Amino acid sequence: MTSEQPSIITLTTDFGGQSPYVAQMKAAILCIAPAARIVDLTHGIPPQDVMAGAIALADSAFHFPEGTVHVAVVDPGVGTERAIVVVQADGHWFVAPDNGLLTGVIKTHRPSVMRTADNPVLWRPEVSHTFHGRDIMAPLAAHLSNRIDPEQIGPRCERFALLDWPLPQRAAGRLCGEVIDVDTFGNLITNIRRADVDDWVAGQSKADRCAVVHCGSNVIRGISLTYADRPAGSLVALFGSTGRLEIAVAGGNAASHTKLSVGVKVTLSMASEASA
Amino acid sequence: MTSEQPSIITLTTDFGGQSPYVAQMKAAILCIAPAARIVDLTHGIPPQDVMAGAIALADSAFHFPEGTVHVAVVDPGVGTERAIVVVQADGHWFVAPDNGLLTGVIKTHRPSVMRTADNPVLWRPEVSHTFHGRDIMAPLAAHLSNRIDPEQIGPRCERFALLDWPLPQRAAGRLCGEVIDVDTFGNLITNIRRADVDDWVAGQSKADRCAVVHCGSNVIRGISLTYADRPAGSLVALFGSTGRLEIAVAGGNAASHTKLSVGVKVTLSMASEASA
Amino acid sequence: MTSEQPSIITLTTDFGGQSPYVAQMKAAILCIAPAARIVDLTHGIPPQDVMAGAIALADSAFHFPEGTVHVAVVDPGVGTERAIVVVQADGHWFVAPDNGLLTGVIKTHRPSVMRTADNPVLWRPEVSHTFHGRDIMAPLAAHLSNRIDPEQIGPRCERFALLDWPLPQRAAGRLCGEVIDVDTFGNLITNIRRADVDDWVAGQSKADRCAVVHCGSNVIRGISLTYADRPAGSLVALFGSTGRLEIAVAGGNAASHTKLSVGVKVTLSMASEASA
Repeated sequence: MTSEQPSIITLTTDFGGQSPYVAQMKAAILCIAPAARIVDLTHGIPPQDVMAGAIALADSAFHFPEGTVHVAVVDPGVGTERAIVVVQADGHWFVAPDNGLLTGVIKTHRPSVMRTADNPVLWRPEVSHTFHGRDIMAPLAAHLSNRIDPEQIGPRCERFALLDWPLPQRAAGRLCGEVIDVDTFGNLITNIRRADVDDWVAGQSKADRCAVVHCGSNVIRGISLTYADRPAGSLVALFGSTGRLEIAVAGGNAASHTKLSVGVKVTLSMASEASA
Repeated sequence: MTSEQPSIITLTTDFGGQSPYVAQMKAAILCIAPAARIVDLTHGIPPQDVMAGAIALADSAFHFPEGTVHVAVVDPGVGTERAIVVVQADGHWFVAPDNGLLTGVIKTHRPSVMRTADNPVLWRPEVSHTFHGRDIMAPLAAHLSNRIDPEQIGPRCERFALLDWPLPQRAAGRLCGEVIDVDTFGNLITNIRRADVDDWVAGQSKADRCAVVHCGSNVIRGISLTYADRPAGSLVALFGSTGRLEIAVAGGNAASHTKLSVGVKVTLSMASEASA
Repeated sequence: MTSEQPSIITLTTDFGGQSPYVAQMKAAILCIAPAARIVDLTHGIPPQDVMAGAIALADSAFHFPEGTVHVAVVDPGVGTERAIVVVQADGHWFVAPDNGLLTGVIKTHRPSVMRTADNPVLWRPEVSHTFHGRDIMAPLAAHLSNRIDPEQIGPRCERFALLDWPLPQRAAGRLCGEVIDVDTFGNLITNIRRADVDDWVAGQSKADRCAVVHCGSNVIRGISLTYADRPAGSLVALFGSTGRLEIAVAGGNAASHTKLSVGVKVTLSMASEASA
């Protein structure tokens, strides 16, 4: 990003896309940083689902240019003593309540700056007890996009609230993960990454052809390249747009088809073992 | 707003967030004011619910910087003889059908400029009978953001269509209001403002602790500061993000919990009277 | 559009409005064209409904200023050998999979430039098998908005995949069309344009008054100018915001009222014939 370009500020909330609360956050930003470019990351996080917010943020934030400021507001503890934190990681800024919402960001990228917001000069003059997204976090993001000295934000902090972040496990020669998200196409998205599978098969060739994916009562033989690799209506396992293994239905909706959702276990075995 | 910054134009409609009609309004603006910053205030107003549009506009518009142009299109009478009006209030511009949509704005802020749009030079060359949002109001907003002389819009007007705007009433020592909105978290938002309560209790100390909120068959003792002031799952009354009294469920959804919605009466009494 | 103004890029997808995939496309654009103005045309196309995407694009794209770049991603064949194409028509650019999504654009506007994308220099360095919207089409649109030489995109192409585009037909003195879309107000929108009716009645005066619209078991006498021309709750036929004949309910929802939807036949006859 050249210095003449205005900063980008993204918003991730559980407000729903048509909430005027989203507009109020944008208004608060534009009062301080009139040239900021505001992009909705998503406002479709289920109400108060901090884990879903953490996943969306980790999956999408780093696609933006360096220097982007990401504000995330899934904040059931608003008005209590939970802190508001500002983190820089890989050239991106994050502003969020300290309730685990940055777990995915911190687990995947090393934070360099970590501060607790305690300087009301950077906030809205009047701070409500119920909407720190508008009254504290949006103004902070606007000031960051104006390139204030991060020392102004507040004191360094060393620790964050972290969620129990689900990582795939190996057990008895199998790789065990779970569905952590369902996208708008009904694809069941797991926490298993390409690297996890490569690691598990230790470079074994034809691994994708021989892998068997178990999910609920469904068994899928082989990992495909594209949705269209299988006949319409049949289940397909593939590494999807998030870089994680997902279970889809070619031309259909896997969540409806399987009646499975977030939390269900997904296990990979190798064909020789599974075809007993 | 410095003069180098492009104007902000906000949009409030009942089109639904994914309607291409919204995009057509934005296209109409960008043809005239290519540097305008367009922000969605909300497109989630229930179809043809002028009152809901009036509330959203009054609650959110004035959070934006001065000079912002707000276009509001909830317009069941499109194509009839209802006028289109342009109002300036507290440095903000409003463009809307003259059907009461600006009631909240006018009730809370003194309008300085009030004009009826009758100059087709400022409109789309071809005006449909069904979509004045795109063909008249969006172009007008774009010209306003280009800082035309307001005299060009059309003649001054003195009166507007106004909705019956619900204000809280006092009766027998009680303060009586109603639920006027339900937000995406299911919070039941009333028409009772902090100032209404302060006025009612006449500076009585501990008023928030002693107030009793009646809503349907529910009784809530005390007005809290935050959602988290009560145990998860229980009802809580507090002044929310709109500055108005709302009834919420800590960690839950009050609309589902109580089965109450817009229009239900909300009454405040003082504990000594209610604890009989 | 003056050359100092940044290009506009519109997005049309079937991702749903709150999908982080939309944000990832915007991020990919902003990495290449940081000053581009991104406008959502719609993300509400039903999953994998290429025809619905083609209609939305043809209806709304040409409202934008010349020079706008339109990216459309309804792409069930992603990862297969279907090409990605770039088309210029009437000064607008279109980037889409070659699956018929540009049918409406091509049927209504003469394309001047038509190229198949085969130059990976213009794409994201890492291209997934599942998300060419983010990895190929968004970067291409960003480069187009930066005004690259179109020759860089790839070789000229002569033919596109085209959908069977429904045009109204005349039969036995009647004009026969169909419902091709239902908007967020429940209006049933047909494929019959003003010009089709004018042509059919051959300049016959009072045609709108005498026309009889048949749709399912409903019969509507006369074509009205506005929704409010009929009593609240009754069916009305009029030329709507898309320029096409639509069936509405004054102050109501025609889709709910009639239980009709996309695909139903709509026939026009003249009163003398129908009033037998």
